[in-house]
Amino acid sequence: MTTATAIWTRRHILSLMDFSVTELDAVLQTTTSLRDVLFRRMKKVPALQGQVVTNMFFEPSTRTRSSFELAAKRLSADVMNFAPGSSSLSKGETILDTAKTYLAMGADIMVIRHQQSGVPQAIAAEMDRINSGVSILNAGDGLHAHPSQALLDLFTICRGLDPENPRCELLRGKKIAIVGDIMHSRVARSNIWSLTTAGADVHLAAPPTLLPEGFREFATDAAGSLKLHWDIEPALKDADFVMTLRLQHERMTAHLLPSLREYHQRFGITGDRLKFCQPDVKVLHPGPVNRGVELASDVMDHPALSLVSEQVTNGVAVRMALLYLIGSSKANGSLN
Amino acid sequence: MTTATAIWTRRHILSLMDFSVTELDAVLQTTTSLRDVLFRRMKKVPALQGQVVTNMFFEPSTRTRSSFELAAKRLSADVMNFAPGSSSLSKGETILDTAKTYLAMGADIMVIRHQQSGVPQAIAAEMDRINSGVSILNAGDGLHAHPSQALLDLFTICRGLDPENPRCELLRGKKIAIVGDIMHSRVARSNIWSLTTAGADVHLAAPPTLLPEGFREFATDAAGSLKLHWDIEPALKDADFVMTLRLQHERMTAHLLPSLREYHQRFGITGDRLKFCQPDVKVLHPGPVNRGVELASDVMDHPALSLVSEQVTNGVAVRMALLYLIGSSKANGSLN
Amino acid sequence: MTTATAIWTRRHILSLMDFSVTELDAVLQTTTSLRDVLFRRMKKVPALQGQVVTNMFFEPSTRTRSSFELAAKRLSADVMNFAPGSSSLSKGETILDTAKTYLAMGADIMVIRHQQSGVPQAIAAEMDRINSGVSILNAGDGLHAHPSQALLDLFTICRGLDPENPRCELLRGKKIAIVGDIMHSRVARSNIWSLTTAGADVHLAAPPTLLPEGFREFATDAAGSLKLHWDIEPALKDADFVMTLRLQHERMTAHLLPSLREYHQRFGITGDRLKFCQPDVKVLHPGPVNRGVELASDVMDHPALSLVSEQVTNGVAVRMALLYLIGSSKANGSLN
Repeated sequence: MTTATAIWTRRHILSLMDFSVTELDAVLQTTTSLRDVLFRRMKKVPALQGQVVTNMFFEPSTRTRSSFELAAKRLSADVMNFAPGSSSLSKGETILDTAKTYLAMGADIMVIRHQQSGVPQAIAAEMDRINSGVSILNAGDGLHAHPSQALLDLFTICRGLDPENPRCELLRGKKIAIVGDIMHSRVARSNIWSLTTAGADVHLAAPPTLLPEGFREFATDAAGSLKLHWDIEPALKDADFVMTLRLQHERMTAHLLPSLREYHQRFGITGDRLKFCQPDVKVLHPGPVNRGVELASDVMDHPALSLVSEQVTNGVAVRMALLYLIGSSKANGSLN
Repeated sequence: MTTATAIWTRRHILSLMDFSVTELDAVLQTTTSLRDVLFRRMKKVPALQGQVVTNMFFEPSTRTRSSFELAAKRLSADVMNFAPGSSSLSKGETILDTAKTYLAMGADIMVIRHQQSGVPQAIAAEMDRINSGVSILNAGDGLHAHPSQALLDLFTICRGLDPENPRCELLRGKKIAIVGDIMHSRVARSNIWSLTTAGADVHLAAPPTLLPEGFREFATDAAGSLKLHWDIEPALKDADFVMTLRLQHERMTAHLLPSLREYHQRFGITGDRLKFCQPDVKVLHPGPVNRGVELASDVMDHPALSLVSEQVTNGVAVRMALLYLIGSSKANGSLN
Repeated sequence: MTTATAIWTRRHILSLMDFSVTELDAVLQTTTSLRDVLFRRMKKVPALQGQVVTNMFFEPSTRTRSSFELAAKRLSADVMNFAPGSSSLSKGETILDTAKTYLAMGADIMVIRHQQSGVPQAIAAEMDRINSGVSILNAGDGLHAHPSQALLDLFTICRGLDPENPRCELLRGKKIAIVGDIMHSRVARSNIWSLTTAGADVHLAAPPTLLPEGFREFATDAAGSLKLHWDIEPALKDADFVMTLRLQHERMTAHLLPSLREYHQRFGITGDRLKFCQPDVKVLHPGPVNRGVELASDVMDHPALSLVSEQVTNGVAVRMALLYLIGSSKANGSLN
């Protein structure tokens, strides 16, 4: 991990839009090392002992919060969970003041999820303005970005291609289909940035109401390419990986979709549909899965097809890597 | 604890229905050793360091959750608490998928409570089917079973008979009355299984609406015996221990009980009523107690009569023993 | 810290009404030592390893609970958080029985917040009656007291006067204005006791509806003095420190205040108003702040004027000191 730490210069992880291949490879390399820890009996390393990681999930999420909490604990950090329900926010305090309170208590890294796009960025800007030295890790903001999810997807795909040495160059010439509600998905946005930067050919597939033309702008100067499809077959044709997105039930009431059943018929990933892909195609989903909507149950449970549970495991490892890269930079003084 | 660990072969603890005397004694012996830890200044041992215990309480319970959490922390495990309120369940994910997500994150032991009977068993079956190696500990499922509660009751009773060496054979010829809402009590079911297996004579007492005839089937081939009473006096007559059950307020609205007051008059445990029992009788209650309903306040607070607070202390020790027995089997490879 | 620990004899910290100058200085001295820990990379000491601190916040509070949780973790204690929402209380258990349950589980120190005045005292009395040896730390009870807040305020003020050696005697002849809703503030009551004991001249300022005459009785035999004002200017005149209090929005609906705007015009702390004070005046607020009501935003954010974020940091250090003083007395056997 020496090399990875040496090249790392970011204090915050807010979006993958401007991540370089070198940075993506640093994350992949660090994750590979830390993933081994998860398979020992003693699944902990003392890397962040005495440091405080604060989980501030303004938008509740048990799954992502648990993943970050476990990652922090395996690096031996102390974890504080902020529960907005019973918090100062309901007493009229601003979000920036809440963040400053946790800073003053001694938080070293704040993991922030918020239903509004831009909140982690705004907190990071203010923390830098007052020279706090604290790090912000975006755990999902509105429709904007979800960098740790996209990095775990990148790691899972690259590890699928070379378990010993997952790295970006493996993605050159690979076709990755992203299927589902692209428009409302911060997961899709973050994945488009990282996958095309890494060199993959990304094909988006969704009904027109969920995939606006504007997405063409997302990867104009990337190493890989980006294509849009309003039908699923051209997207799946010869694909090496199929990334499905979660369909929010509330999209139906907004009249963007006719019905879950019709969505599944047109865009659901089934064994039959996967025959358009490469023979060794793998399927991803960020979870939680609506079985029989985005993914047929037998595909999701098929050990040779589904990477869903591998993604969850890698999620802990990637989050350990992100906390480690940010936290060690803090320690060796290169950032402060 | 060497002997206890050596004979232990279970990966899961789901119900006490098929526990042997040897297994019950292994739990009692391990609990005796670990209970000492609670009275040191340094109340921790490193037995499960680096392992992850996930508390999945789909039915909320501060008391039992805290007891398991403390037990796990005293074995130096990392604890994750799953909060169903803000969870993926409300997003349409199945319970099995939620469990698999925590498995993929790295849970070694899942402590599961659910309002429906059979959920921990279903999760355990699925976990074994996919060869996960994870252990399931049932922390209460519907009306079915609450094994850790019955084991702490067994330990408390046996320790009352011989503090140095609590063991099943002490129960031979002892009379234990279980009083209250038997029908709706998973605590009663689990206790009937363990106490009659251990050799005690168990006498159930409740109004007929709360004690169906079917309970006669519960201990047909046990070392001890089981008797049913619809009046309290024959159950209390010469009893060595009286185990009271919590009365759920909602039973009244279901017209199974006339009133709390009338219940107390007919089945409440008072000092007067205890005169039917052995002179050194002891009273147990799983808590939380409705003072003046199941138990008169002066009985509950009487240090020579009440084992209520001893039960809570032993609850932490028994849960340490269960996590230890399951967790060490994991470690020495005898199960995986 | 040897001297401080040596003179310490309290098992509980319930109110500052009867704290001596020697005890206040013991807290200040211990806090000074432990505050240094917060600025190390390894922000932990093993002082309370293996001990259990239970946070029982019957009245929810993320901020104070987080501060206590972090303080306990930095002393290496195990922390249990009690969530009254899903608890036995809703099942009819009394508060004393809930406390006894946590005692039986092994709690060494209970940090208790309750909306009713007197609850921590009642629990402490019961715990002593049964010779439990457990310590109660009042984290705020009704309108009565909030000792850890007043001690962090005392520490912050004294440290402002001498960062190397904060001590009570620095307060002799100093004027401290407390401005705001005095009547409903446990923070104000606790501060009046500690500051006048330490020797400061305390000036209270509030509209007559929020500052009854009865407050004159609060410091009759103290080293310092206490004065009441129904206008702000005489309180601010030559003040060395201005302590603002949080205004609860619900006071308006109770017709005790005309409007937030009018309150700010008459009692809000602005740069202009601070010109009445000493040139090096400092402003405190217990948080969360209603910006533009109790405090103008530019005052709150002014690094030379505002001690708000210093208070939060010192809050963790003071709570470490309180847990340490109580916890070590426990360890060396001088109390049990």
